[in-house]
Amino acid sequence: MTDRNTLLASLRLSDRRLTHTLGVEKAALTIAARHFPALREEEVSAAALLHDCTKEWTAAEQLAFCDSQGIGLDAQEKACVKVLHGRTAAVLAERTFGLPAAVCDAIRRHSTLCERYAPLDAVLFLADFTEENRRSLACVRCREYYEGLWRCGDPHALEKALVFGLDAVIRENLEDGNLILKDTLESRNAILYRLSADGQG
Amino acid sequence: MTDRNTLLASLRLSDRRLTHTLGVEKAALTIAARHFPALREEEVSAAALLHDCTKEWTAAEQLAFCDSQGIGLDAQEKACVKVLHGRTAAVLAERTFGLPAAVCDAIRRHSTLCERYAPLDAVLFLADFTEENRRSLACVRCREYYEGLWRCGDPHALEKALVFGLDAVIRENLEDGNLILKDTLESRNAILYRLSADGQG
Repeated sequence: MTDRNTLLASLRLSDRRLTHTLGVEKAALTIAARHFPALREEEVSAAALLHDCTKEWTAAEQLAFCDSQGIGLDAQEKACVKVLHGRTAAVLAERTFGLPAAVCDAIRRHSTLCERYAPLDAVLFLADFTEENRRSLACVRCREYYEGLWRCGDPHALEKALVFGLDAVIRENLEDGNLILKDTLESRNAILYRLSADGQG
Repeated sequence: MTDRNTLLASLRLSDRRLTHTLGVEKAALTIAARHFPALREEEVSAAALLHDCTKEWTAAEQLAFCDSQGIGLDAQEKACVKVLHGRTAAVLAERTFGLPAAVCDAIRRHSTLCERYAPLDAVLFLADFTEENRRSLACVRCREYYEGLWRCGDPHALEKALVFGLDAVIRENLEDGNLILKDTLESRNAILYRLSADGQG
């Protein structure tokens, strides 16, 4: 697999986003070690390093890249270019760096999760939302909420923190009059079903 | 078609809900006359009168009725009995009163709308949320917002008020930790696409 230094050297990001990216890597390694110790560290690290590698592209650049790579976009993706960076970053991860499918999937879904998300998807989503450089109130609270649940030994710490993060994403979309993405809704509902089945709903 | 007096006499509702029901009928007739003058008044009235006719049933009664009528429920419906009253009321409207499909559909969808909602669906949803007896802040604001848009001649008054109402429903579900229903999301997104295509997004 492409090594960490090669991935890191490939990044063309502002200082601010590079700091965020390294924060996500650190958080992801911690979350993965807690909840999914079978995940390979180098895959967790690769997903974190590349997740925002195209986020500073313009909307026109996102769309042109998708076009050049033969990636068809549905109505939702065309109307919501903001989350296309997950899609384009996943294509780079796969086609430029030959990273494993689980890594590319996690990168693609990192803004939304999806109904049947995988362990690495959950790790990257939560790490992205809670890494130590995040300063928005929703992120700070989610970080404190998750850490508190974990310290208290709550067996559903990860799932509860994911719902907290997804709620914040939905709330932000409501405030801004933006679409709420189907994957965001389906992942949240899927977790609520599971928590409810475990008597935590 | 079953006449208004027969439908009204069939209702077994608390005074509070009967007042709400008559308020919905009044609001629905106003909204329909403004936006869809081709809708038949008796159909608008029937949809309004029956929309909550089973809302005071217990969850067990909702589920038993669905079972007795051979109505299969998906995971979302089983987990969210609160909105089942639309489903059961629609069955009564169809099987007991022989009401037209458009009326039964509007009753079934009155808590959520759906991606390709019909005129009567929109009328009933907005009337239910904004009728004059509603006192919650979200409902009062939605009523004032809609009336203001209408008075100002906004050509998208109906659609904007529907999004306002759907946003409030989603926000309430977030606050309460409840599922957000797929139809709620899809109807909201569909309206946002349309408003955006008209330069209003």
